[in-house]
Amino acid sequence: MFSIPRPLKNLIESFERLPGIGPKTAQRLTFYLLHVPQEQLDIFASSLSNLKKNTVLCEKCFNVSEINPCSICTSLDRDESIICIVEQPLDLISIEKTGRFKGLYHVLHGAISPINNIGPDEIHISEIIPRILKGNIEEIILATNPSMEGEATAMYINNQISNLKSRNIKLSELKVTRLGQGLPIGGDLEYADDMTLTRAIEGRREF
Amino acid sequence: MFSIPRPLKNLIESFERLPGIGPKTAQRLTFYLLHVPQEQLDIFASSLSNLKKNTVLCEKCFNVSEINPCSICTSLDRDESIICIVEQPLDLISIEKTGRFKGLYHVLHGAISPINNIGPDEIHISEIIPRILKGNIEEIILATNPSMEGEATAMYINNQISNLKSRNIKLSELKVTRLGQGLPIGGDLEYADDMTLTRAIEGRREF
Repeated sequence: MFSIPRPLKNLIESFERLPGIGPKTAQRLTFYLLHVPQEQLDIFASSLSNLKKNTVLCEKCFNVSEINPCSICTSLDRDESIICIVEQPLDLISIEKTGRFKGLYHVLHGAISPINNIGPDEIHISEIIPRILKGNIEEIILATNPSMEGEATAMYINNQISNLKSRNIKLSELKVTRLGQGLPIGGDLEYADDMTLTRAIEGRREF
Repeated sequence: MFSIPRPLKNLIESFERLPGIGPKTAQRLTFYLLHVPQEQLDIFASSLSNLKKNTVLCEKCFNVSEINPCSICTSLDRDESIICIVEQPLDLISIEKTGRFKGLYHVLHGAISPINNIGPDEIHISEIIPRILKGNIEEIILATNPSMEGEATAMYINNQISNLKSRNIKLSELKVTRLGQGLPIGGDLEYADDMTLTRAIEGRREF
């Protein structure tokens, strides 16, 4: 039986390792790339091998950046009294896109997930308290995902901050908030799950 | 506003050029690759840039191969009297997987599609007649897709072969066949479209 040539197989295997890409899609992408000019393949290849070489994690907020500290942490336009804690760099980008947040960030690079052996020490949680102790923080927004892991992570961080506040009178004004939960815009009440609807009712506002 | 660092943007743009991968998926894949070891990124990158360097199109059947002519065309186990004409190398691989075809192939690398400016000269149709004239071909299987373009391509090739047969008495025994059409295995009669059902009725066989 004829089998796929080695150079194609190699690429198919690399594609298959990506999340959400199965064997069929990996094959389809590989055979598609056979029709693409060599120049474009080389650009793709160099983007891949330079991805991590040309980026660092910001030492302050752990966002992915070309410079350290990142452009947000060094910006003079940002409100240094608010820190928004997110799970992933992509979450930061989503919030930036709204243009409604002018504070700083803290990227955890994950969420607490005992099933996947990810505890508080595996993600950048321990670096939060020192940032708060440096002073001038008025609000911490816990913007982890509204999932089981995200909620657990938010709860863990909130406990840590509460402990800190009980021992440090200067921090008594520090607010800890969580992103609003409820019906997504364009969503349909009929198809909303119980939990979302419960949160929507609890979080109702005067019209 | 913070924007995605250049090295990430470059990779996102490369992913976005692939068929079926939108901006969101491209972002997700790129941020995923940030957590992958550099070694694995380098393997991915070299697979990409070597994809076309280490493969050729077989001069006989135009299949993608590491050697020329390809391993099918040079195999002694294949029946040289049957040629199966397919649109793409992936179609060839699908047929090979069944293990039920022992003849040779001819890969067109496309189908006639006037809307996309693809005529008979843009794909490997003109090379079919010389292969038939070399002799000993008993059957041509037109295994193009059962789509509008595939049907048009099959019809065009069939016409060419008919013309050839009318001028060449030695070819009068040459059979031209088309893959069977009807209900797919595991399919549901209720959801079959009219055309498929029509073909299934026309192609019914004695039980």
